[in-house]
Amino acid sequence: MPYFLHQAASILRCAGRTSMAPAAPSGVAPASAGPVDPALIEDLVAANRILADQGVLDGYGHVSARHPKNPARYLLSRSLAPELVTPADIMEYDLDSIPVDQRGRTMYLERFIHGEIYKARPDVNAVVHSHSPAVVPFGVSSVALRPIYHMSAFLHRGVPVFEIRDAAGMTDLLVRDPHLGRALAQSLGDRPVALMRGHGNVTVGSGIPFAVYYAIYTEVNARLQLQAISLGGSINYVAPEEGKLYEPNIAGTINRPWELWKKKALGK
Amino acid sequence: MPYFLHQAASILRCAGRTSMAPAAPSGVAPASAGPVDPALIEDLVAANRILADQGVLDGYGHVSARHPKNPARYLLSRSLAPELVTPADIMEYDLDSIPVDQRGRTMYLERFIHGEIYKARPDVNAVVHSHSPAVVPFGVSSVALRPIYHMSAFLHRGVPVFEIRDAAGMTDLLVRDPHLGRALAQSLGDRPVALMRGHGNVTVGSGIPFAVYYAIYTEVNARLQLQAISLGGSINYVAPEEGKLYEPNIAGTINRPWELWKKKALGK
Amino acid sequence: MPYFLHQAASILRCAGRTSMAPAAPSGVAPASAGPVDPALIEDLVAANRILADQGVLDGYGHVSARHPKNPARYLLSRSLAPELVTPADIMEYDLDSIPVDQRGRTMYLERFIHGEIYKARPDVNAVVHSHSPAVVPFGVSSVALRPIYHMSAFLHRGVPVFEIRDAAGMTDLLVRDPHLGRALAQSLGDRPVALMRGHGNVTVGSGIPFAVYYAIYTEVNARLQLQAISLGGSINYVAPEEGKLYEPNIAGTINRPWELWKKKALGK
Amino acid sequence: MPYFLHQAASILRCAGRTSMAPAAPSGVAPASAGPVDPALIEDLVAANRILADQGVLDGYGHVSARHPKNPARYLLSRSLAPELVTPADIMEYDLDSIPVDQRGRTMYLERFIHGEIYKARPDVNAVVHSHSPAVVPFGVSSVALRPIYHMSAFLHRGVPVFEIRDAAGMTDLLVRDPHLGRALAQSLGDRPVALMRGHGNVTVGSGIPFAVYYAIYTEVNARLQLQAISLGGSINYVAPEEGKLYEPNIAGTINRPWELWKKKALGK
Repeated sequence: MPYFLHQAASILRCAGRTSMAPAAPSGVAPASAGPVDPALIEDLVAANRILADQGVLDGYGHVSARHPKNPARYLLSRSLAPELVTPADIMEYDLDSIPVDQRGRTMYLERFIHGEIYKARPDVNAVVHSHSPAVVPFGVSSVALRPIYHMSAFLHRGVPVFEIRDAAGMTDLLVRDPHLGRALAQSLGDRPVALMRGHGNVTVGSGIPFAVYYAIYTEVNARLQLQAISLGGSINYVAPEEGKLYEPNIAGTINRPWELWKKKALGK
Repeated sequence: MPYFLHQAASILRCAGRTSMAPAAPSGVAPASAGPVDPALIEDLVAANRILADQGVLDGYGHVSARHPKNPARYLLSRSLAPELVTPADIMEYDLDSIPVDQRGRTMYLERFIHGEIYKARPDVNAVVHSHSPAVVPFGVSSVALRPIYHMSAFLHRGVPVFEIRDAAGMTDLLVRDPHLGRALAQSLGDRPVALMRGHGNVTVGSGIPFAVYYAIYTEVNARLQLQAISLGGSINYVAPEEGKLYEPNIAGTINRPWELWKKKALGK
Repeated sequence: MPYFLHQAASILRCAGRTSMAPAAPSGVAPASAGPVDPALIEDLVAANRILADQGVLDGYGHVSARHPKNPARYLLSRSLAPELVTPADIMEYDLDSIPVDQRGRTMYLERFIHGEIYKARPDVNAVVHSHSPAVVPFGVSSVALRPIYHMSAFLHRGVPVFEIRDAAGMTDLLVRDPHLGRALAQSLGDRPVALMRGHGNVTVGSGIPFAVYYAIYTEVNARLQLQAISLGGSINYVAPEEGKLYEPNIAGTINRPWELWKKKALGK
Repeated sequence: MPYFLHQAASILRCAGRTSMAPAAPSGVAPASAGPVDPALIEDLVAANRILADQGVLDGYGHVSARHPKNPARYLLSRSLAPELVTPADIMEYDLDSIPVDQRGRTMYLERFIHGEIYKARPDVNAVVHSHSPAVVPFGVSSVALRPIYHMSAFLHRGVPVFEIRDAAGMTDLLVRDPHLGRALAQSLGDRPVALMRGHGNVTVGSGIPFAVYYAIYTEVNARLQLQAISLGGSINYVAPEEGKLYEPNIAGTINRPWELWKKKALGK
């Protein structure tokens, strides 16, 4: 009888083994792009905590940023609940998701989501992967996520659903290798959000605040759209033209919620 | 690649530019109506924080009060998340929503909501604009918001839905000029609440506590009405006569929740 | 233009006038039943705060206890949001809801709910009146509240809905006199809970913890029953026989949540 | 008139009598399996508080762990709201749920849930019994709980509903003796979760973090499945093969939420 499983300590050891599979099979770790402005690291840590504070992330999910000095590197926490991430936990990866300097740290199994999206989307500098609760039902339903109001008008471009069965048949649903990461990136296309069936979603932006904004308002839209559907009447969604006209406003006002989110999340 | 977008700091600078478009094209700023009783400013700040604390406002939305010494002036925070507003952030505007003394502060793009409602409604001394979450679905649904209980009996007068497409065709959904502000005020008519399709709502009152009360109980009513509809049976709404009979009670008891809301919101 | 309404202070004065209508028309105040054990007062204050903490009460609603030395007297806070009630706010009333010693304090308009129920129900020693949010929809729907699980098995006796129109036609929906209080008490009958259409509900118990327990689990049941209905299948409610068999268990375990509720509510 | 019921203190005394029925009819208490590693006790206390913090437990429900030195003993708090449990409250029982050393402490009436599951399931080292709110509706509905996403993929084995009427006809719905405990264990079979009609559910795991994980994600799945159903479209559930493939991942990552949950619950 496995009594050693009684205690979290032994699980920690066991987890360590599992997610510390050799990262650089060639034995040669990629070169670092060099030190990063602490303000960017602070924003990345803030993003993790903001998304936990806003109910988008629970103990799982992760947020990354592209390295500002080299587009072929990205920054992502070691395997840790987002709410607990600190600057010391941020690791550097190349776009094949091989760590520059692992130093024994455990890694997120699904880091390939980040690496493959950065490869496919030069315009993207930040990626959020979450199990955003109200969004999950839209990932498994035949009903499409559509924009309810201006705050989520960015959904007007359509919200693809990544069906991992199409890419690899029956799996454990995890994006655990570059092939699956590429299939997800392809499903995402040039849009800010893609749902992942039976799993969660990804949002991407030109900077950290944008990817965070998309993640939060995708969640809010999912809640509001469900409510609108439950009312039982017909629904007047944001028209694609309205969505297109609204989009430029985001850059002009995003600092307003960003300051608030940061204060609330870091003030804890 | 726009690396400068990585950090919130650069977005702040960019946002500043966008919302600081010249406010007084004539070059002549309107005259101030003079200093305001600090107790009124305190109530206005409290209103911002109360509505955030009660879940009516998130990082967006705004609350204003008419100037007590001159009905042709109103008071509104600079562009800031409501939860962060302090007395020092309150600015004075004329009813064309031109600032008395901008001093480089960024302004809410949609301040015309306030100015045009004050023009059209001499009985109104406070205006709330929010994206009150449970109310948004009623703004896009063919199902009308109707009063469920005495607390929201003020809805008995009917709840108009402002369709910005009727006023200006395809837009970015924002009330960004006096023309759109007037169209919204016209839709509101003599009522305390108007919904804005794909956007949010406005509530107005003879004083700050009333506009806040209407905003909070419009949100609560929206939640309860959705629940009543989801039960699937028939619904016995508050009759117009009951609503009319209830209304005078609000003034007699509003200090009870107002004291509580203030304590909870300011105690944080 | 009523600028004096701008500020909460003037509303307070106005509210004072409204709810301080002469309480004892005869001019003779009823005699006090004497001092009360501070532990009972503490439980009564705790009940107010517990029900706010648990989301049953907002800025409105009230809780009373029968006087332990004289069944013809009861104890109830002056007009105040329940979350703000302290021992110093508790007043003593006779069963006609006339205060023993008003000392200028404003009173709840609907205190007749308490007085008339104490008259009709000698077994009742505590009364809660709330606008318990999830319960309100059941008060206006043709769908009846029914017990989903053992915790709310006390609903097996049936949940009457008090229709104030049957008692007095079109009103402001408030129980503002003894006649309406009696009609509500009649609707309640010998049960622990009655809903009030377009208004809220009352729960009654042999002691404060029981009335509080009924109020909390009526709210929880309402939430769970709505969810069960929304699933769309058939529902297997607690049978009346099961409900009857469960009821004696409440007294045996009520101290468990009571201790917790008290600690959470008073620890704030 | 039972005035003594006015105060919680007297209820406490009454409750004491009820749940302190003679525990060892034979008069001979079972022998202790000896002292337990404080880290296990800490995990057991943490589990109680985590499940309260995560909204799975309210004032009721309980969590146990098998004794690490003797599979014929288990550890469970005295009768107490889970959020208030401390190391000093943990008692030791044999699998007939007879206490090793009662020392006047009141016991959970339904401790037989734990004892009988430990008898039937040698692989199980931790048991959670809760009234997990979103799960209760699935226990009374004809609609089955099914896995929505990978986090709750463990539900792929099917979720039995224990109907106590089949075991004992009309009862008070409580598992108050070994016979009912055995019937529940039989219904559970070799699965991690069983619902209890009109009552709640049990989750079991090879260690404390697993039973907690199952309890939390059963609750989350219930919420998300209800939302998916409310969307009105068809639903693509996690396939049994996907669920089976996912399960080994839990051990590898469970320390991530466990650390977070513990910090949040114990930090209060």
